[in-house]
Amino acid sequence: MLTLHRLEFLRRSIMLLRRFAHNQIWGMHVHPTAIVSLKAHLDKTHPAGVHIGEYSYIAFGAVVLAHDRTRGLYLNTVVGANCFIGARSLILPGVRVGNNSIVGAGAVVTKDVPPRTIVAGNPATIIQSEIDVVHYGRLRGADATTLKLKASGIYRG
Amino acid sequence: MLTLHRLEFLRRSIMLLRRFAHNQIWGMHVHPTAIVSLKAHLDKTHPAGVHIGEYSYIAFGAVVLAHDRTRGLYLNTVVGANCFIGARSLILPGVRVGNNSIVGAGAVVTKDVPPRTIVAGNPATIIQSEIDVVHYGRLRGADATTLKLKASGIYRG
Amino acid sequence: MLTLHRLEFLRRSIMLLRRFAHNQIWGMHVHPTAIVSLKAHLDKTHPAGVHIGEYSYIAFGAVVLAHDRTRGLYLNTVVGANCFIGARSLILPGVRVGNNSIVGAGAVVTKDVPPRTIVAGNPATIIQSEIDVVHYGRLRGADATTLKLKASGIYRG
Repeated sequence: MLTLHRLEFLRRSIMLLRRFAHNQIWGMHVHPTAIVSLKAHLDKTHPAGVHIGEYSYIAFGAVVLAHDRTRGLYLNTVVGANCFIGARSLILPGVRVGNNSIVGAGAVVTKDVPPRTIVAGNPATIIQSEIDVVHYGRLRGADATTLKLKASGIYRG
Repeated sequence: MLTLHRLEFLRRSIMLLRRFAHNQIWGMHVHPTAIVSLKAHLDKTHPAGVHIGEYSYIAFGAVVLAHDRTRGLYLNTVVGANCFIGARSLILPGVRVGNNSIVGAGAVVTKDVPPRTIVAGNPATIIQSEIDVVHYGRLRGADATTLKLKASGIYRG
Repeated sequence: MLTLHRLEFLRRSIMLLRRFAHNQIWGMHVHPTAIVSLKAHLDKTHPAGVHIGEYSYIAFGAVVLAHDRTRGLYLNTVVGANCFIGARSLILPGVRVGNNSIVGAGAVVTKDVPPRTIVAGNPATIIQSEIDVVHYGRLRGADATTLKLKASGIYRG
């Protein structure tokens, strides 16, 4: 397990370095409390247009775009606070994802997402409103669900 | 061609090593006869929940998820036997893909897929039922099709 | 900035080498004026079936497929001239994208795209017809849009 802890330390160091690069070198606006997966992709053609709010989570394979070559657009794309941007999803240039919202895995988000809303699909549509999340877009009740699953032996994490 | 054969040998060795890692180190359940592309991605946050059946094929860029951070879910995601999981598709946590079924390229599978069924789209919907496949989700008649294409000179493989 | 210019020179050299590999080693048909992102993926199982026309742009993460294992298909997949194939999109085997057309980011293109057409979604559907593009699928008026955005200070490229 010592090895795993060292790997975890390494991973976190790389994530810190990467956030430094995103904000200080590229000029993005990623909040220090946001978590951006090492396999997520933030637009480097128009980095100043990338905004990720506090306590938001950008999952593995997600892409946040801030430019559109075909239309000559260079826009601000904004992920609010406490959002979860799901694996392999795509946030198109100029889109604003409201606070406390969730973008489902694989979704392609073409228009603004209201606060406290789950969207999914391609193009993404609203599948749930008035949701109640805490940090990193985690739905209230998620902790209890995990505890129940652990007790049942399904989750051995 | 000697070089190509050596590369192929190398590729297969890496795939064997990777299956060993998936099952013995991570604790997944990938059948020894299953083929998992080196560019496919099986969930490492809840590896015990990943089940890939015999003679199934997980194509390049496909993702099999077994956890959902937002809901605190850690579930079993099951790909049956003789399935083909297409390039860049996404199988969501808890989904069961029945035996002898095909998931189209780019599909995002949000609910169970019945046996002998083709699904595609995001969210994935059924586009064909009662299909007839052999190992690795290959439709009966595919060999004849390939032979015909080779005879016509289109496929120079 | 000297460093950045050197990096840009390096990137272009790699892209040239890669085009050489695509056409001369793999046997694809990528026009010398086409731009293929280093993170795009052209089918290497049936490379002879990949055709990319002049002044077309294959964006980051896009995939052009020319074979279908499940049906035994090895087909010609054709991207015409002056097309823009958006980030993370997927062109399925046998599809023909007409000249001067745009495939939206994240689209999964399952059937032919007429010339001068924008498609998007999964499965992709037509969202605009009779469009007017110049090289690389850039819509006429895009330059003016970019100039306006630069004047407003939004784009600091």
